[in-house]
Order: sequence, then C-alpha cells, then structure tokens
Amino acid sequence: MEEQLDTINRLLKERRFSEVKNIIKDENPADLAELFEELFADNFDEKAEFMTLFRLLPKDSAAETFAHMNPDMQGHLIGMFTDKELREILDELYIDDTVDMIEDLPANVVSRILLNSTTGERRAINDILRYPRDSAGSIMTIEYVSLHKDMTVLEAFEKIRKVGVNKETIYTCYVTENRILTGVVTVKDLFTADEDDKIGDIMDTRVISVNTHEDKEVVANMFQKYDFLALPVVDRDNRLVGIVTFDDAMDVIEEENTEDISRWAAVTPNEESYFRTGVFKHAKSRIVWLLILMISATLTQLITARYENAFKVLPLLVSFMPMIMDTGGNCGAQSSTLIIRGIALGEIHFSDFFRVVFKEFRISIIVSSILAIVNGARVYLMYGHNFPLALTIALSIIATVVISKMIGASLPMLAKKAHLDPAIMATPLITTIVDCASLIIYFNIATIVFSNVLM
Amino acid sequence: MEEQLDTINRLLKERRFSEVKNIIKDENPADLAELFEELFADNFDEKAEFMTLFRLLPKDSAAETFAHMNPDMQGHLIGMFTDKELREILDELYIDDTVDMIEDLPANVVSRILLNSTTGERRAINDILRYPRDSAGSIMTIEYVSLHKDMTVLEAFEKIRKVGVNKETIYTCYVTENRILTGVVTVKDLFTADEDDKIGDIMDTRVISVNTHEDKEVVANMFQKYDFLALPVVDRDNRLVGIVTFDDAMDVIEEENTEDISRWAAVTPNEESYFRTGVFKHAKSRIVWLLILMISATLTQLITARYENAFKVLPLLVSFMPMIMDTGGNCGAQSSTLIIRGIALGEIHFSDFFRVVFKEFRISIIVSSILAIVNGARVYLMYGHNFPLALTIALSIIATVVISKMIGASLPMLAKKAHLDPAIMATPLITTIVDCASLIIYFNIATIVFSNVLM
Repeated sequence: MEEQLDTINRLLKERRFSEVKNIIKDENPADLAELFEELFADNFDEKAEFMTLFRLLPKDSAAETFAHMNPDMQGHLIGMFTDKELREILDELYIDDTVDMIEDLPANVVSRILLNSTTGERRAINDILRYPRDSAGSIMTIEYVSLHKDMTVLEAFEKIRKVGVNKETIYTCYVTENRILTGVVTVKDLFTADEDDKIGDIMDTRVISVNTHEDKEVVANMFQKYDFLALPVVDRDNRLVGIVTFDDAMDVIEEENTEDISRWAAVTPNEESYFRTGVFKHAKSRIVWLLILMISATLTQLITARYENAFKVLPLLVSFMPMIMDTGGNCGAQSSTLIIRGIALGEIHFSDFFRVVFKEFRISIIVSSILAIVNGARVYLMYGHNFPLALTIALSIIATVVISKMIGASLPMLAKKAHLDPAIMATPLITTIVDCASLIIYFNIATIVFSNVLM
Repeated sequence: MEEQLDTINRLLKERRFSEVKNIIKDENPADLAELFEELFADNFDEKAEFMTLFRLLPKDSAAETFAHMNPDMQGHLIGMFTDKELREILDELYIDDTVDMIEDLPANVVSRILLNSTTGERRAINDILRYPRDSAGSIMTIEYVSLHKDMTVLEAFEKIRKVGVNKETIYTCYVTENRILTGVVTVKDLFTADEDDKIGDIMDTRVISVNTHEDKEVVANMFQKYDFLALPVVDRDNRLVGIVTFDDAMDVIEEENTEDISRWAAVTPNEESYFRTGVFKHAKSRIVWLLILMISATLTQLITARYENAFKVLPLLVSFMPMIMDTGGNCGAQSSTLIIRGIALGEIHFSDFFRVVFKEFRISIIVSSILAIVNGARVYLMYGHNFPLALTIALSIIATVVISKMIGASLPMLAKKAHLDPAIMATPLITTIVDCASLIIYFNIATIVFSNVLM
C-alpha cells in the first residue's frame, strides 16, 4: 500500500497520467477510496491533484469509489466538480449513500448537491432526511424491486432485467398491492419455480418488516438473527416505503460497537474516526465524564477522612488500600461488562434479575475465597506472621469482591429498567461506586479486628 | 413471546397437537429455534416433549430451525432422532452448519452424525475440520455455484436453476478453470447481460479472495469494507475450495466483539453465552486475571509503604489517594480503549506511534488543566484556604493525567508491535500500571510542596 502510494504520487507529479490510469484501473472501489484518503492526508497542499486523479478513474467505478470516501474527501471533490460531473455522480449514487453524505457535509456543499439533483431525487432525499437520526427510515434506500402478485415468474424476470441495474439489491423482491406489503420473493425462489407460476402462489407471506421509526440498532440485530440480505421498511399503515440492506446493517453494528466501547471508557461517543477528530473535540468528549467521576470520587475522600484515627495508629493499613480498591473495581467491572454485553445481545432481561444476582453471588464466593487465601497467606508470611493483619486483608477481600460483583451485576439491569443505556454503568462509574464500598468495608473490618489497638 | 410460550406449553400438555402445529407453521426458523430454547430452559424434566414439538414443524423449516438452535438443544434432539430423521436433517443442512454443530457437540453425538452422513459429506466435514479453529477454512462452506468461462449467460442460468436449490448462495457465482479461480459473476451481472454473452466476457477478473488459513477476523473485516455477499476461499495454488457468506461474517464480528469486550474486562473469553456457562467455569475465566492483577497491585503497597512518614505527619494526604488514582485510571482507560478500537478497525498502526502520543499529549494538557483548576479550587475552599494542599492536588492531577494518557496510548501499540493482542492492555492492566505511577507522582509532589513539614 505504502509503496503503491509513493508510485502514484510520483507519477502524478511527473504527469505520467496514462501509467496512473493503468495502475488504478483494476482496483476495487473500496481500496481506491482508501488510496484517495491516504493521498489526501499526506498532501494537503496540492489539492488540485485529486481532481486529476479522480478523472483518471474508470467510468464504472468512479461513483462507487466516491461513495466509499469519507465526508472531508467528498466535500473537497464536490467543490472541484463541474455541475455536469456532479450530476453524473449523483445519478449513479444510491439515494441512501447520497443521504449519508448530505448528513455530514457543510451547508453550502449540500445546497450544490440539491441544486444538481432532479426533482424526484430531491423529494426522496428530503423524505429520508425527515426520519429521526437513529431510525430505520434514516438508513433505508428507496431503490428496491417491487412485483405484483398476478405477474408470472417470467414477467418478474423481465421486470428485474429492466429495472434491476438501478436497484441496490435485486435478490429480494417485494410484492405490494396498493403499496401495502403483502409478500416477499427471492430470486432463488424465482429460479426454482416454473416460468408460468404466479408470483402470488410462490411468494412468502410471512413477511418480517420494520417500522420506519424502529431503532436502527434493533434493525441491525434482526439481520444478525435472521440472516437477511434486506429487510423491508413500512409505515404505520404497512405501506412499503423502503428497504435496509445488509451492508448498512453491518455499518450500524460497527458504529454501535464503537459507541458502546466509548461509553464504557467514559468517553462521549463521537461518529468521527480517531485521527479526524481534533484535539479540542477529543478533550471535550472526555472531560465531562472525568469531571463527574472526579466529583463523585471525592466521596472516597470523606470516607477515608473518617478513619484518620485508624491509619494514624496503624499506617500499614494505608498501603493495602490501593490493592483492595483495585480488586473491587476489577471484580465489579467483570460482572458489569458481561451483564451489559448480555443485555445488548438480548440474552439477559430484567426478569432475570434474581437469577443473575444469585449466579454472580455464587461466582463471587468462589473467586473471593481463592483471592483471600492467596493474599492472606502472602501478607502473613511477608509481615512477620501478623495474623490480625492477614485476617483483616482476607476478610476485606471476600466482602469487597462479593459486594462489588453484586453492584456490578445489578446496576446495569436497573439502568435498563429505568430506560437508561446500561453501558453508562460501565467500568468507570462502577469503579467509583465500588471504591466507596471497599473502603468502608476495609476500615470497618480493620477497626473490629484491631479493636484492642484502635479503640 | 412469554404468552405464546405458555400457550404452546399448555397445548402440548393437553396433547392438542394440531393447534400447536397451526401456531408454529408461520413462524420464522430463527424465532422457532428461540422458542425451543426457551421451552428447553423452562422444562428440563419433560424432554420427550421437544421431539413431539419438533415433529410438528413444517418439513421445509425443520432443518433451518435446527441449524439456528444452540448446541445443547441440538445434542438433545439428535439423541432422540431416529437414524432416518437424522439423515433427513443432515441432508438439508449446509456443510458449514454441520461443522459448526460438530465442533460444539460431545464425541458420542458426533460419531452418530458421521455414521449417518454420506461418504462425500463425511469427507467434506473432515476437510473443513482440519483447518485451524480461527481460519477462513473453518467457517467456509463448499456449497457454491461454479461456472465455466465458455458458458453463455443462458447456460449459466440453466445451471443455477438446476443446482441452485442446494447452494448456500447463488447470487455470486465463481468461474474456475482446472479448479483455479479466474473470475466472479453476480446474478445481477447475468440479468443485465445478453442471453448469448459468454461468461468469460462479462465476468469480473479482479477477484478478491482469501487464503484458507487467513484469520477469520480479517475475513469479517473485508466484508465490512467491500460490502460482499460472499468471499471466495482459495488454497496456496489459488484453487477455489469454498466460500464464506456474509451471515457467517456477521457472526464472526459479533463473536470477536464479545471476545474483545471480555478481554477488556479481564475475563478470559468464552464462546458460550452467560447463562449457559456454569458458575465454576465463570469463576475460572475470571480468577486468572484477578490473581495476576492482585499480585501486581501489591506494587502499590510497596510504594505506599515508602511514604509512611508523609502520611503519618499529614494524614489528610491519604484521603486524596483514591481520587487521584481513580482519575489516573479513568484517563488511561479512555486513551487505551480508543487506541485499541482504532487498531482493531485498522485505522491506527504502529507507524502512527508518535502522531498518536503527541495527540494524546495535547489532549491531556487541556483535560488535566480543567480538572486541576476545578479540584484545586474545591480543595482550597473546603480545607480552610490551605494553599499548599490545593497546589499539591492540582499539580498531582496534571502530572497523573498526562502520564496516564501517555501510558494508555503507547502500551496498546507496543503490544501490537510485539504481536500480542492490544486488548490485553485494556482498563484493568492499565489501571494497575497507572496506579503505581499516580502514587509515586502524588507523594513526591507532596514531599516537595510540604518540604518544611515533611523533611
């Protein structure tokens, strides 16, 4: 890749265009888009080059390459397109790709796009833009094949042949009557039927569809469950308005995973990639949670201050604080992460509350006993056979691990019940809550075990 | 769902089978499999019922329903199938689904499956089982449509019509010559071509394929990038041996995400779902990392013990330890998580090392300044205008945040460079490392600021 980039860069500078053309003619559009983005990142000054390069692309892959580019690159190219070139690209793009692009581009570029679209395209774009940002409607395309139940298989084939080239998928066709969705038929079904069979007889009437306002994450999960190539999107009256294709569902899955992962790391989710996000935006998306967590962490300060007397007399107690807190935090994070993932995959529901908590309780007893024995023995041997100290550490570990796992298991489910995103109950917040619990447990156990010294 | 379950349960008990048959006949196989699993979880005692229920399924969805079930349920049913029923199901299953099943079933059930397979099926199963567990070969299917370049479009259509019903996908066909993969042709291409065009003239020779030994995660990412329906799998000599379909790629993406998430929570990844994993197995997959982290956390104990003198004189210092450590841990986790995700998505490479570290440095300066000002002011106001204390806290926060983000950003990239999974550098390990750094920073700054008191 690096090498190819250098070669193309050099050839462009030396204006050896036909050689460039030769190199890029056999590349896949997704790879070409990456090539443009890499060149764009390296050569911010010579932006005119990109237009030259873009004009060297084979006609049939120019639009698809364009669709794969990031919005910066698209915006830049649109700025350099003639109206005719822009119209040609827009003609080739599927409506859902155009809408994706419009959502991310600055207003002046968007108005140029709308000016160069046909009235029909403009209407379709506006229709899709009207749907809420995370809805099925916002990711659907209107380019599907619809059939009628009275058609024969042969007529269906003819229709697909005629309109297919402009449709995003032809492999699942939708049967409608007065725009109401009544059945689906796959091209595989058509192949295995007789040429004069009626579509109405071979279609599958058990249609699984989603409403335009359905959450796109739910839609993506349906692809994972049912292995669909496409899923029809209907309005409240069951009228077919569009379809979502599997490639868009895959994008949603990747996006949602990145979003969940950001939330777990206490970062406000951001749709841009790491490098394309500026330093200030990165700082902004991290500071909010850090402030919230820091303020709540001052609770530990108030708790610790209450036991000043204990560690004045036994300063050794202080040195075990980090280990106890970390173990508690890690145990809580293990439970909360697994539960949050289970909820996201639809495996764990609120009705499983007691089943989950009881399971985590049993796990925590096993885990904490092992940790307590190992660490108790270590402390006993390292600190001159100080049995009360070893006992304090061992008991604190057991109590901390059990409580941490109970907190880590129950909070995500309670968040879900309260219609919050369970992912906000991820590691950082759980750690803060668990820290307070661990410190209270630790100092109370120490106070009891060392009552003769500390009271 | 709950309601439907109860109804079916009741009808089965009252032996009103035709009513059950009526309810389930229009359900999607994926939903039916879920129904079986729910019934199975609720009624462990009356296992014979399931066979009755399974026999009520419509012929055309029985095998697909079976393929969607979890291995427990499959193993149980196979135990109750007659040989004839087993053979019928195996006949209908795609080879990759059979292999998936075999990988998860106990040996005695597997040998029954192999006994009831044809010689050809057995050979195919063994071939796929021979590939490494995470390779493209292990998730591929051998049921694809192959064409010859001298065929006409019409002949291709006839071949698809004849063999298509048994192929996992017919929409992408592969052109081979002496088993060497030379081109691909989609059904959409066939539809838009003339009936007497030669396949060799309309096929796409720019074939993107993967080797049988390619990591399945890499394969899944290619689906995300190129929006393929299927990807051909070739051996070292570029001979076509199978295809991977998009639904299997989606499963891999879900699996890998769960695996990464487990690792981040310091849980040894486990392919089973939360409820299907026993308490002891859960404990085992969590204890290893907890022990490693607990042992390494004792480092903090040695560090803290060195500053015993400082907090003997100024016990107030102890109460800020948790807050400083938590803030450091959270900042480190933010950076490491974003970098690990960037590496997984192929956006960040080792060659970006300095670019990333410099970016994180600038972010950490902004973030830490805000945290230091807010917290310094709070401490100043809460603790009787104790300026040295406020200064210690503010400076410690700045140093801790900067160091934490540097550690969090660089360790995942170094792990990648050392061919380790970057995800092992996730929150728990980063927290432990960052804790040590924070404590050293904090106590050293305190010792300097309070030098008149502490020395």
